[in-house]
Amino acid sequence: MSGAFSFRVIATDGAARCGVIGTPHGKVSTPAFMPVGTQATVKGLTPDDVRATGADIVLANTYHLMLRPGAERIASLGGLHRFMHWPHAILTDSGGFQVMSLAKLRKVGEGGVTFRSHLDGALVVLSPERAIEIQRLLGSDIAVQLDECVKLPASHGELERAMRLSLDWAQRCKRAFEASVHGQVLFAIVQGGDDLRLRVESARALVDMDFDGYAIGGLAVGEPHDVMLRIVAEVAPALPEARPRYLMGVGTPLDMIEAVVRGVDMFDCVLPTRNGRHGLAFTRFGPVNLKNACHADDSRPLDEESKCSAARDYSRAYLHHLVKANEMLGAILLSSINLAYYQDLMARARAAIAAGRLEELRDEIKTAWTRGDSVT
Amino acid sequence: MSGAFSFRVIATDGAARCGVIGTPHGKVSTPAFMPVGTQATVKGLTPDDVRATGADIVLANTYHLMLRPGAERIASLGGLHRFMHWPHAILTDSGGFQVMSLAKLRKVGEGGVTFRSHLDGALVVLSPERAIEIQRLLGSDIAVQLDECVKLPASHGELERAMRLSLDWAQRCKRAFEASVHGQVLFAIVQGGDDLRLRVESARALVDMDFDGYAIGGLAVGEPHDVMLRIVAEVAPALPEARPRYLMGVGTPLDMIEAVVRGVDMFDCVLPTRNGRHGLAFTRFGPVNLKNACHADDSRPLDEESKCSAARDYSRAYLHHLVKANEMLGAILLSSINLAYYQDLMARARAAIAAGRLEELRDEIKTAWTRGDSVT
Repeated sequence: MSGAFSFRVIATDGAARCGVIGTPHGKVSTPAFMPVGTQATVKGLTPDDVRATGADIVLANTYHLMLRPGAERIASLGGLHRFMHWPHAILTDSGGFQVMSLAKLRKVGEGGVTFRSHLDGALVVLSPERAIEIQRLLGSDIAVQLDECVKLPASHGELERAMRLSLDWAQRCKRAFEASVHGQVLFAIVQGGDDLRLRVESARALVDMDFDGYAIGGLAVGEPHDVMLRIVAEVAPALPEARPRYLMGVGTPLDMIEAVVRGVDMFDCVLPTRNGRHGLAFTRFGPVNLKNACHADDSRPLDEESKCSAARDYSRAYLHHLVKANEMLGAILLSSINLAYYQDLMARARAAIAAGRLEELRDEIKTAWTRGDSVT
Repeated sequence: MSGAFSFRVIATDGAARCGVIGTPHGKVSTPAFMPVGTQATVKGLTPDDVRATGADIVLANTYHLMLRPGAERIASLGGLHRFMHWPHAILTDSGGFQVMSLAKLRKVGEGGVTFRSHLDGALVVLSPERAIEIQRLLGSDIAVQLDECVKLPASHGELERAMRLSLDWAQRCKRAFEASVHGQVLFAIVQGGDDLRLRVESARALVDMDFDGYAIGGLAVGEPHDVMLRIVAEVAPALPEARPRYLMGVGTPLDMIEAVVRGVDMFDCVLPTRNGRHGLAFTRFGPVNLKNACHADDSRPLDEESKCSAARDYSRAYLHHLVKANEMLGAILLSSINLAYYQDLMARARAAIAAGRLEELRDEIKTAWTRGDSVT
């Protein structure tokens, strides 16, 4: 690992761990949730707002930033931290996932992936080497290898081909990564779809290559909840204790807590901000759909004991009004409330692991989320 | 005037005055700019953000709030201050202006105005008495009479009819207002279009009725800049020295400073937030259109000496990126920057009046706004 980077497990509870990742841009307490700053901004919030929710680290999307405003441009402006005015840790993904989900006319070959930009149709080539170069230009603290992510369900043959290609790209990313000086670390991505044998093979091969951390990719792409959990339960023990484990694109509060139980340290997901923009709040007591007319005369805040002022200071009636009136402030407050809830959930998970009572917390959260806060 | 309400002129410079309005929800330094909180929210900003720009008072639109969520509902939720979590002063307009500009099938009669809601087509009657009742339910600090605002250009006959109707409604509003106990004051609205004789007649008749403050309405509705200034110059001296004067819906920085020179104390306008949502920044050096490609590689902030952190902390390149990418944060930061600029302009006007150098400030601002900050 790079000198400025470290990972220390502080406590364990079964397979679950709580710890601290050290980065050149500060400490990240794990289990950690990373708000998604797709286009170098977490939608609707200032960097100070994001920090106030409790975030130590955000994710930024290489795919979006390479197309606009461009990685070279961000580098010449002093790097991504300075560009987006976020002095804390940043993880960049490799761009692979969005190439699969957003780009047009993509063609995957040995050399990399060729696609047309969803913005202007320009032809772009993303190779493992270029993915590393872009993330170096962005200057994130944690870079991620280029991989090929396959939508589920998929055939065994397709899953195996993509997994082996991703292994090859992992090796090439590592070589490119080590060829230059940097204050970054590189995470590999375990692939293999819903095939447990392929997953374990992928994990072992990547561990042999020795990365700074390991992501589990290609989940939360349509497979059932229990399939996802089975894969996490199988893959996590195949990864080194001394390295952070990151479950990409996951998920709901229940998904995350179940993954923490199985040994995952890091998460990212657009749900808290996307749902916030659509009138759905996450609270300790479950989800609340603020579009519903039942809130129109409700003077209670969402959670008067929340650490998040937005959850304490505004009535459900006001939030309902903002959502119905399509006011930006509705999206802003609910995004903030939801991110604060996610961060609070991670903080509670860390405390529960330290106290050896993670199972209790899991059951608590399950009950709240099964019951719900009110008629929604 | 009501016990909790006061207005004190601290200094004058020619016709211009600086002073303080006392309200049950705090002091308002004048000349004052009131950000527009149309639907009980200043678009894109939290109440704390709005306060941080320097605002002592916001405006809320009676028309919008009576239709959604409803004045009775806001009253039962504890009033508008509590509803929108803004503990400082609030002025509500009467709804008259939006009835003219937004509502369908409106019919003005002696009794009031009947119209169909632009939201759901519901038939609504707004009489002078109901306009007062609604503003009482909202619980604003400053209420405004119902008037009829005519679009310019208009015939002399039409202007005179609307002016006399507005005088009649002023009297009825005053009677309704005085019939009950409250912590509110009531402003009258001078009408008369671009006809100076009608304007002065309206002003004198309203002064005879003795209101707590006087608005000049029906301007910034299409007339030339110099016509507006001529009317302000003519009307202001006809109003009592000891009462605040409010120029409704105005305006650009230059409009405001010229109106201050002519004795106006209060302003409201959607420009800073609307332009902020469309990529235009107001700065000490003039307007900056952040959509322009010339900003793409510009690492300078908009104004590194601004009191507004958003104007200091983010590069023009980043703001350009946010605007091009249609990110909410672009609208949020630019709205905040623009409102802070408007508040700073008012603070500089107050200081200039106290120092007897308002003409100098006016010339400074004119020069900056004529030259512009950069090629926009």
